Amino acid sequence: MNLLLLERGEIGAGGRVELSDARADHLQRVLRVAVGQDVRVGVVDGPIGTATVTAIAGATVILRATVGGEPPPRPRVDLLLAVPRPKVMRRLWAQLSAIGVGRILLTNAARVERNYFDAHALTDAVYRPLLVEGLQQARDTRLPLVTIHRQLKVLVEDTLDDLVPDASRLVADPSATLTVGEAVRPDRSARVLLAVGPEGGWNAFEMALLAAHGFRAVGMGERTLRTDTACVALLTLVHDSM
Amino acid sequence: MNLLLLERGEIGAGGRVELSDARADHLQRVLRVAVGQDVRVGVVDGPIGTATVTAIAGATVILRATVGGEPPPRPRVDLLLAVPRPKVMRRLWAQLSAIGVGRILLTNAARVERNYFDAHALTDAVYRPLLVEGLQQARDTRLPLVTIHRQLKVLVEDTLDDLVPDASRLVADPSATLTVGEAVRPDRSARVLLAVGPEGGWNAFEMALLAAHGFRAVGMGERTLRTDTACVALLTLVHDSM
Repeated sequence: MNLLLLERGEIGAGGRVELSDARADHLQRVLRVAVGQDVRVGVVDGPIGTATVTAIAGATVILRATVGGEPPPRPRVDLLLAVPRPKVMRRLWAQLSAIGVGRILLTNAARVERNYFDAHALTDAVYRPLLVEGLQQARDTRLPLVTIHRQLKVLVEDTLDDLVPDASRLVADPSATLTVGEAVRPDRSARVLLAVGPEGGWNAFEMALLAAHGFRAVGMGERTLRTDTACVALLTLVHDSM
Repeated sequence: MNLLLLERGEIGAGGRVELSDARADHLQRVLRVAVGQDVRVGVVDGPIGTATVTAIAGATVILRATVGGEPPPRPRVDLLLAVPRPKVMRRLWAQLSAIGVGRILLTNAARVERNYFDAHALTDAVYRPLLVEGLQQARDTRLPLVTIHRQLKVLVEDTLDDLVPDASRLVADPSATLTVGEAVRPDRSARVLLAVGPEGGWNAFEMALLAAHGFRAVGMGERTLRTDTACVALLTLVHDSM
């Protein structure tokens, strides 16, 4: 934990914060804070600042936080992801927020197993703490916006232009010869929307649908990677190219 | 599983292979093979070929394999990694072999917890199947060579030149301004050795030791990543730059 993330409502009068959950435990057991010590804090979707430990009583840590100014900018990459199997999705949440994504659009696809959608890993109660964990790792406060889409066709045809306007659209395709570096030009104001398919790949209809809506196919060499590895690898290349 | 990996000793006279383990189960339940069907096979550290399913009897699948020629080239990136916590290491094995590394040198460091070394995740019986899983995912046969080093100083001063000769040496450092892309020039014959430190970072002595032995510090922006995410991200950038 490189940044202690607080919810806005947790900061009381005079910046007083009282924690007695896993964060208090982490402060005491891992960071071994003492009274008077400063820790770096941030507010979810808000600014970054510092907090001074003012008291420790049993499992409770009390701090006085000073945060203000502008929140960090929202990451300029969004991910459109065919829902992977629950175990993989669970591993992915914290890594996605750590690498930095603005939006995570989870979608159905022909090769997504039906039961993946009803998985526990897709509930806000499961993924929010994992996203927060990734933000605390990467010292960011911008919680990725997560939306779940049952129909790829409806998402791509009707919803995407509003949700993710003005982004350069890429779809990962092992057979593509265009690289991420060739597709993404350095530009400080641009956004990229990266689509990553299911383990078995998008089918021909889905690839045609994506192509018809401006997605260019990008490849990453001959090795086929598991969804979580592929997402980390591709998002890294996109960030690096921007 | 995009490639069925066989041990050399599993291929009998006339290319006969009899499987009744997890691979046979995967062939039947996931790939739903039928008699007469061809599957892509490879031999650990050997060549790639095909095998025809000749019989299915209960949990046993019998194939006739035809493999020959040159094994794929060994990946040209090696990883020197301070042992991460067991849960992270366990997640990392299959991802490392999938992305492609020639060698994995696991080392101690000041900020590596002592008990990480005695972890189950560092035993051949645990990591070999995970490495094989990654190779099967990425369609490679080259099992990374794994060595474990209890003393970083001894490794760097006495062992490294023999184990990893003629490699361009890089060490990941969040404060570095040199990027992987700037440090690694495209060259089809070059090798790269990438060092990744413990969660808390290398200490000053270790950084000086690495610098004195030719490691150049490379960074990846301001976000601090967990070891497994960082390894995937950095190895992706090195492969991409080569």
